[in-house]
Amino acid sequence: MSRRIEILRRATEVFERQGVNRTSIEDIAKAVGVKREAIYYYFRSRGEILLRIILPQSTSMTMALQGIINSNVSDADKLRAAIRNHLDSFNPNYLEMTVALREEHFLDDDPKLKELRRSWSEYSDLWTRLVAEGQERGAFKGALNPKMVAFGILGMCNWLSRWYDPSKDVTVEEIIETFYTMTAHGILDGQPPAA
Amino acid sequence: MSRRIEILRRATEVFERQGVNRTSIEDIAKAVGVKREAIYYYFRSRGEILLRIILPQSTSMTMALQGIINSNVSDADKLRAAIRNHLDSFNPNYLEMTVALREEHFLDDDPKLKELRRSWSEYSDLWTRLVAEGQERGAFKGALNPKMVAFGILGMCNWLSRWYDPSKDVTVEEIIETFYTMTAHGILDGQPPAA
Repeated sequence: MSRRIEILRRATEVFERQGVNRTSIEDIAKAVGVKREAIYYYFRSRGEILLRIILPQSTSMTMALQGIINSNVSDADKLRAAIRNHLDSFNPNYLEMTVALREEHFLDDDPKLKELRRSWSEYSDLWTRLVAEGQERGAFKGALNPKMVAFGILGMCNWLSRWYDPSKDVTVEEIIETFYTMTAHGILDGQPPAA
Repeated sequence: MSRRIEILRRATEVFERQGVNRTSIEDIAKAVGVKREAIYYYFRSRGEILLRIILPQSTSMTMALQGIINSNVSDADKLRAAIRNHLDSFNPNYLEMTVALREEHFLDDDPKLKELRRSWSEYSDLWTRLVAEGQERGAFKGALNPKMVAFGILGMCNWLSRWYDPSKDVTVEEIIETFYTMTAHGILDGQPPAA
């Protein structure tokens, strides 16, 4: 593991444990076992460290979602793949996602974090497009506001960062199937109401 | 407005704007236009102020949800009423809910905040019960894990604290109907798959 990667890894742990706002460069240096200066050799600020942790995650999620939208499968399958793409990022990178979704970054006025906000809004716009295109093709109910549907599903998924404990018995796979069933077919059993 | 209520109201605004962790008693005093001592006359700590803002909200939500579960309506109507009960609390008390759902409180080890955590976990247990009872009566799909369903819907609703802007054109009423349709019937148009 390169020193740079090691710093990012340790910083993620410290951010997750005590929150970004309560973490100093000193704390990160201590966690790595080096002096402050060694951290500044690689990163200019705490904001930059945060950016380097989160941006690769949100970039790869966005690129994969773009691929799903362009793929040649049914809209229902796109929905399932998009939920999977989102929730899978909680799996090996669980700490990164937890840190990424903390809202404190959205209160922070560090200009570095603008890039993060832009990246998330690009990602959620793609989700809205996935829903809207499914509606245009008649696969999804047309009466629903696509942005609200997209934000509803994203909320459902993102809230995992508050309650999901990867050490407990529920698997991400089970959550993906549950959320897909809920949002595609609903939890009511039996026939849908006459439209 | 009593002085005590005024302090809670102003504190809510400051907490919402700059986050609880970055707010001092001094900041709150400044917002009210009094000295620090005047704040301490009513509250012992920042944690207590936070508790007095959030607890009435979560208590009334919990009591109303209990009433919905005990009511004599269909499980589908209970689901809709429970979503309404939750989202309505974003309406007049929008700031309170935004502050209430900030995760920084869950990182904080102020013992005062234990009471808050207990209150939210009581509330989410009731949600799980609403789903499980609907499953027992055969109204909701029995194959889904009720806790995951409950947390999914709560996540969908709670994420509003990140994106909902009451000054924009979408009404809470519209969001309630969208989330109800999504979770009860799903977004796929047409027949449900053969079970």
